[in-house]
Amino acid sequence: MTDLTELGKKAKAACRILAGADTETKNEALRQMAASLRAHTAEILAANGRDVKAAREKGTGESLLDRLSLTEDRISVIAADMERVATLPDPVGEVMDRFTRPNGLAIEQVRVPMGVIAIIYESRPNVTADAAALCIKTANAVILKGGSDAIFSNIAIADALRAGLEQAGLPADAVQLLADTDRAAATALMRLRGYVDLLIPRGGAALIKNTVENATVPVIETGTGNCHIYIDKDADIDMGVNIIVNAKAQRPGVCNAAETLLVHEKIAADFLPRAAEALQKAGVELRGCEITRQYIACTPCTEMDFATEFLDYILAIRVVSDIDTALAHISQYSTLHSEAIVTENNETAEYFLRHIDAAAVYVNASTRFTDGGEFGFGAEIGISTQKLHARGPMGLRELTSYQYRIRGTGQIR
Amino acid sequence: MTDLTELGKKAKAACRILAGADTETKNEALRQMAASLRAHTAEILAANGRDVKAAREKGTGESLLDRLSLTEDRISVIAADMERVATLPDPVGEVMDRFTRPNGLAIEQVRVPMGVIAIIYESRPNVTADAAALCIKTANAVILKGGSDAIFSNIAIADALRAGLEQAGLPADAVQLLADTDRAAATALMRLRGYVDLLIPRGGAALIKNTVENATVPVIETGTGNCHIYIDKDADIDMGVNIIVNAKAQRPGVCNAAETLLVHEKIAADFLPRAAEALQKAGVELRGCEITRQYIACTPCTEMDFATEFLDYILAIRVVSDIDTALAHISQYSTLHSEAIVTENNETAEYFLRHIDAAAVYVNASTRFTDGGEFGFGAEIGISTQKLHARGPMGLRELTSYQYRIRGTGQIR
Repeated sequence: MTDLTELGKKAKAACRILAGADTETKNEALRQMAASLRAHTAEILAANGRDVKAAREKGTGESLLDRLSLTEDRISVIAADMERVATLPDPVGEVMDRFTRPNGLAIEQVRVPMGVIAIIYESRPNVTADAAALCIKTANAVILKGGSDAIFSNIAIADALRAGLEQAGLPADAVQLLADTDRAAATALMRLRGYVDLLIPRGGAALIKNTVENATVPVIETGTGNCHIYIDKDADIDMGVNIIVNAKAQRPGVCNAAETLLVHEKIAADFLPRAAEALQKAGVELRGCEITRQYIACTPCTEMDFATEFLDYILAIRVVSDIDTALAHISQYSTLHSEAIVTENNETAEYFLRHIDAAAVYVNASTRFTDGGEFGFGAEIGISTQKLHARGPMGLRELTSYQYRIRGTGQIR
Repeated sequence: MTDLTELGKKAKAACRILAGADTETKNEALRQMAASLRAHTAEILAANGRDVKAAREKGTGESLLDRLSLTEDRISVIAADMERVATLPDPVGEVMDRFTRPNGLAIEQVRVPMGVIAIIYESRPNVTADAAALCIKTANAVILKGGSDAIFSNIAIADALRAGLEQAGLPADAVQLLADTDRAAATALMRLRGYVDLLIPRGGAALIKNTVENATVPVIETGTGNCHIYIDKDADIDMGVNIIVNAKAQRPGVCNAAETLLVHEKIAADFLPRAAEALQKAGVELRGCEITRQYIACTPCTEMDFATEFLDYILAIRVVSDIDTALAHISQYSTLHSEAIVTENNETAEYFLRHIDAAAVYVNASTRFTDGGEFGFGAEIGISTQKLHARGPMGLRELTSYQYRIRGTGQIR
């Protein structure tokens, strides 16, 4: 098996130095990293050219090629994003709680860096810079493992970032990139106990599953979203149509897009024909249950459709007899990401909010808002779909842990 | 492999009902569970008698037999503890944050139950009741797996608790105990994805290691504590002696007891003979580095001693040339549990606080205070030694997750 112990040791040594860096030093490092990216534009574009050429020769599709491709403008945007992270508030050192015990011990709960964060991601080379920026801002050392498609781009970007760190007097090893892109290297990273404090896999369901199966370090699962919109009997029909069209079709390839529409039977006759017209106009293929097909013409849907995150212009539709049937359906198929109800009835809305187990629950809004930017976090490292530590959009605060600092005068038990 | 899917389904169904229960219903359930424990004292004592008899026949030592044995008084204390949990504040439903976005979306971050919590523990049967109480208070369903030594006691206690839940109108399946105590059952529980939201192993290093290696559900590691006391050159010597004697010898078998003493070389000649006298009087065997042995007579210590959580009347001692050497030593051997400095110098104290990566860092106090009760949490499910989600003593709040609840008026992207 690939041995990453040396890499882990370097990361630990770097994070101990980072822990002593103040906010201004970290911000200066972010600005130097951005400047270095701009200064190395030519090298990065040359490396990216090799990746794009190889991908094209492999017959990679245009949309993936577009995600992989860098331009001078794109590098400039990535650098500007790093500079923007420098302007965000620093969560490290924040006192979350403070109390004094009857014996005089003064206890503070203080936000501290997580330590070493590992991130495994797929195609897009901009993640290399984005993830490094969020980790440095929170005084975490980061070990990055990108996809093989972008390896030359990622190496060139990481080299530039490391040069920037050194310019600012911080250790280059605060950002390390795995040159190995094979599965053995990924598995070794997932099992680097004692060195990796948190592993975040960013990618498709296969990557998440592989991580959860193999990791022995703490993991935050991200990004799988089988999201539902439930149209209650008391829904505003126009609002319902707008929301489902937006949630399904505005950008179907993302995790907060809706995959299944649930409709109360009392509103189905009025709602479904209007919704179907608007959805089909937006290019969405509809797959309906038996009752749905009494109101609109569409493909029959299967059990499998309800369980599928289509990430495409496809929508499963089911008519339900009441809100509890909707809740049971969501509970069965949900990936705990984002769920929404459309209703004018406050009591029904509150019942739905209380009974849905998901990172984000919406009343009368599109699930597409589950996003660090839309929540106002200023930055996002991913969207957690588990319940431990962080749920939903993860910003800077979610990359920190805490520590109790206790000041005494000789207390013993 | 043991199939726990049915058990998982029952737990999920129960936690959906618990999620709808208000604070008073949960508190009433705790009181009914306590009453049921008292009412079933005879059955529990009979079952416990079987366990104790079997353990004695196996040649189990007296201290373990004592941990296993129940009496009418002990059952009454366990019941009173459950009633006390009913009086603690309920974290579920607490609004942690609230903000409105420019588009009018009102976002609330609300504490919610974790869902289904699995707990794997070793001998003591009181954990069955304690853990169930904390989970019910936080509206979590719990799956318990105790040790084989206490199986009859645990079954009798769980039966009583389930009867109490039903008395209060809550589902008995909110508390389930695995009748299988073999390793296959434990492994199946560690891999019950989709049903277990959090697994807490409570026990020795072997159990923690086995859990981390095998679990595919989210885990919080608990309880391993290789804790250090560092006596700075500016320490108050009397205070230092008191603290190390307390941290080592007041109760050496617990995770927050100290295992290694580090002493600044400038104070070693004054401090070590005084400390050695007091420690040896308390029955502690000393194992010192070469420099230590210039000041006091003791066994030579090895590299291995520094890495060992003795949980016994044994202390490793090393003289260091400065605080950075102490920090490097701690960083190498620490299990991130609790670390302490004794110093009258504020600047040195703050430097230590900032550079120690541990759940709890002390200035001038014993590490023995890392405990939910001592922190004023009113209850404790364990002490986390990882950095994800919860760190240090875990009370009720640490058994919850959060959810974003977003109220809109038809917003789309």
